[in-house]
Amino acid sequence: MTGHLAVVGLGPGDVAQQTPQAVAALAAATDLVGYAPYLARVPEAVGQIRHASDNREELDRARLALTLAAEGRRVAVVSSGDAGVFAMASAVFEAMDRGEPAWRGLEVEVVPGISAMFAAAARIGAPLGHDFCAISLSDNLKPWDTVVSRLTAAASAGFVIALYNPRSHARPWQLGAVFDLMRARLPGSTAVVFATSVNQPRERIDITTLAQAEPERADMRTLVIIGSEATLLIERPDGHAWLYSPRGAAA
Amino acid sequence: MTGHLAVVGLGPGDVAQQTPQAVAALAAATDLVGYAPYLARVPEAVGQIRHASDNREELDRARLALTLAAEGRRVAVVSSGDAGVFAMASAVFEAMDRGEPAWRGLEVEVVPGISAMFAAAARIGAPLGHDFCAISLSDNLKPWDTVVSRLTAAASAGFVIALYNPRSHARPWQLGAVFDLMRARLPGSTAVVFATSVNQPRERIDITTLAQAEPERADMRTLVIIGSEATLLIERPDGHAWLYSPRGAAA
Repeated sequence: MTGHLAVVGLGPGDVAQQTPQAVAALAAATDLVGYAPYLARVPEAVGQIRHASDNREELDRARLALTLAAEGRRVAVVSSGDAGVFAMASAVFEAMDRGEPAWRGLEVEVVPGISAMFAAAARIGAPLGHDFCAISLSDNLKPWDTVVSRLTAAASAGFVIALYNPRSHARPWQLGAVFDLMRARLPGSTAVVFATSVNQPRERIDITTLAQAEPERADMRTLVIIGSEATLLIERPDGHAWLYSPRGAAA
Repeated sequence: MTGHLAVVGLGPGDVAQQTPQAVAALAAATDLVGYAPYLARVPEAVGQIRHASDNREELDRARLALTLAAEGRRVAVVSSGDAGVFAMASAVFEAMDRGEPAWRGLEVEVVPGISAMFAAAARIGAPLGHDFCAISLSDNLKPWDTVVSRLTAAASAGFVIALYNPRSHARPWQLGAVFDLMRARLPGSTAVVFATSVNQPRERIDITTLAQAEPERADMRTLVIIGSEATLLIERPDGHAWLYSPRGAAA
């Protein structure tokens, strides 16, 4: 087969945080596949075909991309942030694994990107400065018990926790349950960050405490970071603060 | 104060994975501070002063950078990968927190980068496709008990685990102890990845199993990924394989 499939991480939303590798992969594609708002971030190129889809149809989108590549097209699947973190790369390989045997012979390239959690962390200091984990609250395929056991394990062992997809209209209660779970295990003074639309015009980043964290603050564009007991705040003269997790923090 | 301090993530070693934001921050600096091999990756600029140091002197290096910025210089501290992940951003804020009160008024910018784990993951598929954690084995300030409790919690809860700084001449036994610990909790068939010098001329990436993983395979330039029980291998016709962690995997 002569087709090619690139799974591209666009980064968090600012072209200054998009890698040359990603820009080149997008420019070389004959077909772009992705969630419509992510496709809208890619500059138009003459003759390039765009296949926009809804956000929930990840496996369908992955199958479309593999099918087009198998027809000899040069396809780029776009993800926000990093392609491999709660994004399209895993869906593409899942579709390959379950799909046509010939798809395994396709030339596939995963192009990493700046993840939402790294972009958010950078705006406020170094909250991911010691051992940390990333947990998605979005996946309907994952039992809630699994989320609870991972959150419990992470908090008890002293990880900083980055929460992806913390809240949507379809999942209004989960983040509140997470905060309740954390309050039973961590001091109320533990730092909590709500980072929404990082590096975009409507960016809003709030640092608060676990005691005061309100789940309603989060929406679909929010990344939440829950610090460990070791995470520290540095007050700045301008009224803002830096947040960091010291490298050597014990559990 | 008029000085400026940027903590810059260079990405994993390929300029195609370096962001325009990072390139601009490096070009604008009057002074570069960092571990000598990382400084060597930054193009020379006329009039720019380089302050190279040994790898172990992170806090000293951070203090130097803050001191120079407080003198009105425009300083860039360089890290490999992402600046906020087991790199210089946390050290800079720790030095600020413990140092001169005036340092808190400095203009500081953290510039994120493609982390080693994202670059390694991209080369082999999507092993970080579900909930995952990152643990550093390097820090002498962190008790070994903490490492053990975090590894145990992560394996039991079904996280994929990325191990930074898995092995060096000064720390020859830790990685073997980690594999022993994991073998008591995960099937021998669990995927293990050794990714060394990713996207550099001497890149070497091996996918093996927990049963067969030999700690001697790792060195200072290696990132190790330990899959979850859900992590899957896709055999390719060319003899290579893709590795991915399905998005909906339960613990």
